[in-house]
Amino acid sequence: MKKNCIVAQSGGPTSAINASLCGVITGSLENENFETCYGALNGITGVISSNYINLTEMAAIPGFLDKLYVTPAMFLGSCRYKLPADFTDEVYSKIFDELHKLNIGAFFYIGGNDSMDTISKLSGYAKIHDEKINFVGIPKTIDNDLCETDHTPGFGSAAKYIAATVREITYDTFIYPVKSVTIIEIMGRDAGWLTAASALARRNPGDAPHFIYLPEKPFNIVSFLDNIRDELTRRNNVIVTVSEGIRDVEGRYICEYTPAELSEYISTGFNSAKEKNHNTADIFGNTHLSGVGKVLETLVKEELKIKTRSIEINVLQRCAAHMASATDLAESKKQGAYGIKLATENKSGVMVTLKRVSNAPYETKCDYAEISKIANEAKSVPGSWITPDGHDITQELKDYILPLIQGEVSITYHNGLPEFC
Amino acid sequence: MKKNCIVAQSGGPTSAINASLCGVITGSLENENFETCYGALNGITGVISSNYINLTEMAAIPGFLDKLYVTPAMFLGSCRYKLPADFTDEVYSKIFDELHKLNIGAFFYIGGNDSMDTISKLSGYAKIHDEKINFVGIPKTIDNDLCETDHTPGFGSAAKYIAATVREITYDTFIYPVKSVTIIEIMGRDAGWLTAASALARRNPGDAPHFIYLPEKPFNIVSFLDNIRDELTRRNNVIVTVSEGIRDVEGRYICEYTPAELSEYISTGFNSAKEKNHNTADIFGNTHLSGVGKVLETLVKEELKIKTRSIEINVLQRCAAHMASATDLAESKKQGAYGIKLATENKSGVMVTLKRVSNAPYETKCDYAEISKIANEAKSVPGSWITPDGHDITQELKDYILPLIQGEVSITYHNGLPEFC
Repeated sequence: MKKNCIVAQSGGPTSAINASLCGVITGSLENENFETCYGALNGITGVISSNYINLTEMAAIPGFLDKLYVTPAMFLGSCRYKLPADFTDEVYSKIFDELHKLNIGAFFYIGGNDSMDTISKLSGYAKIHDEKINFVGIPKTIDNDLCETDHTPGFGSAAKYIAATVREITYDTFIYPVKSVTIIEIMGRDAGWLTAASALARRNPGDAPHFIYLPEKPFNIVSFLDNIRDELTRRNNVIVTVSEGIRDVEGRYICEYTPAELSEYISTGFNSAKEKNHNTADIFGNTHLSGVGKVLETLVKEELKIKTRSIEINVLQRCAAHMASATDLAESKKQGAYGIKLATENKSGVMVTLKRVSNAPYETKCDYAEISKIANEAKSVPGSWITPDGHDITQELKDYILPLIQGEVSITYHNGLPEFC
Repeated sequence: MKKNCIVAQSGGPTSAINASLCGVITGSLENENFETCYGALNGITGVISSNYINLTEMAAIPGFLDKLYVTPAMFLGSCRYKLPADFTDEVYSKIFDELHKLNIGAFFYIGGNDSMDTISKLSGYAKIHDEKINFVGIPKTIDNDLCETDHTPGFGSAAKYIAATVREITYDTFIYPVKSVTIIEIMGRDAGWLTAASALARRNPGDAPHFIYLPEKPFNIVSFLDNIRDELTRRNNVIVTVSEGIRDVEGRYICEYTPAELSEYISTGFNSAKEKNHNTADIFGNTHLSGVGKVLETLVKEELKIKTRSIEINVLQRCAAHMASATDLAESKKQGAYGIKLATENKSGVMVTLKRVSNAPYETKCDYAEISKIANEAKSVPGSWITPDGHDITQELKDYILPLIQGEVSITYHNGLPEFC
């Protein structure tokens, strides 16, 4: 008797995670080993609570897969749920009971580092208990911080949106013949890949962004102000891109500086404000805490007395499906389908990976890696890909990102707006 | 001897202002009355400082006009310059000397209310001094707040971007099965047209946005919280769109509330916090002042103890050329060309307007209005187009906006990114 398979999605949204889902569905349809492909709703919690849908049936609806391919965020919903380390916890028997009930031969989890922890634990449990179910991870994260793979599904689309947006903001900035500073805040708490992508907005040397700050290098407020001051002698409009997660040399997030601390930091000649005991939190605690863009905006306004604004690109960078990268979606689908192949080869406790065969012409092929090398690990931008001055990226890093944003995706518009699933 | 004409752009950027410029250029090329079309750089200040370019020559460059048509923000640069009320001021003789030098027969200013003030003054001066130069305004503003015209160039593209973005944010929001509130801040200090456009993101009754707050109605914090609280009993994820310029019943901007004031306002049972003398400004003054989205985020978090986030769409709503409305760009160009026609008919001190002939099928025609009825005036959303409960818009207003966002614009991509002028 043929087995069935089940797929779920977890973690934060991307524009490409449903393309990966399409890959799993079409891979299962084309594979003779699987009868039905189920979709668990809201990640692993959908298995626990018997909440799933029949994707094989849905795939038969004309146009469904085409629309799903370009729909942003999780079609199956998401969760933030970490399985307990203790395999005797009853949640494990609950999960495996459900999988048996559905006659599941393979489980696919599309997600980031945390989701790979789930694959690691379930495959570990299956091995110990001699369960004949394969657990395969399909990568996904705009952050591009998964180890063992060249880059992650979702990153290319986010990178394309960021580069295009920074270019459009540049047009918005240069119209007035007065000096100004624009600070663009981009996602990335620990890894600077997304902020690095802003470099692609440039067409010619000297184009914006003029400074790029990643969390991989300690952020020095004095150097930052010096850089801006200096650049303003050469041009009217200075544009800076900055990761939300930049930290000072002591490891403190710049976005955590309160106005009073910043002010004191400046007035004392930039000695660390940390040593003092500041009671500047408002009555709600930190609830009015600004992002790093607002903190730097305050700083530049105060110190340089220049027109300054900050722009937070925010969640749009992960859900702007109308600006998805065709390369990203195609690779995401390919990796979803490759997961089906791995499962039929009895691989378990692995994640699909991508290897870059060549950069020009750009070519990749799918492979896999042991989940233990990926789960709960993170890949930063290598120091050698950041320029020695700490405020730009190297050509090598640009060459790495450029192929990933290529190609536009055709979206159906209805009544003037994109139509999704 | 044939006369020349000159065009300039002023005010804030839009995605359609260069389409209007295209209309002026092509209109002048096709009109036998004008020899050369000049472009003054940075608005009227380009005339004052003899800073202009030859657009007739540039138009001969293959592909130039096509690319200009979809390029966001001002190709000619902008300015914020108000002419003095006193016609004896030397700036007037300076301007007219320059116009004579270039043998100008018509001056076109593409801009909003403030720019129309310039047209008003220059045409007034010309009349008094018997100058044979016609001054014609070409409308432009994403705010849609110009009087005497059905809607303004730039509004349709901004509306399309806002509706599409709100729809994409909705996808980003619904993935977790936990209760949350999302507050989306949209431009509009005094007029709610842009925020109203967010209603188009809905496809079915009950779709987001669930509440829409425009600056035309006083914003009541207590009702706002009641509405959200109530809606959360019906659904997990409540999405609110709000104009940056909403004010309380006393006319104070909600974004001006400090955290301490809000807190006190809440703790005293929502008596006005204004009466007390609060010294809560930080050392920089108001420099860390959050937008209205952040203020409401703080409020909802504190009062409802629920996961809340705010998203500021920011400048992208006026410069996201990749999401421009084809209808908007076509109408913008049409109005630019109509300006040329008006000038050749010796109209001066007027602005091009648009009349809606019918809504289904959608049809408009160009006309004009006296500049005195437009300059320094503003058009708000009529009270009858806001629902009686004050937190939504009527079907009539949706019907008014819907035709303006129709059609997608084909943009050239190079290396994965939009290519502009």
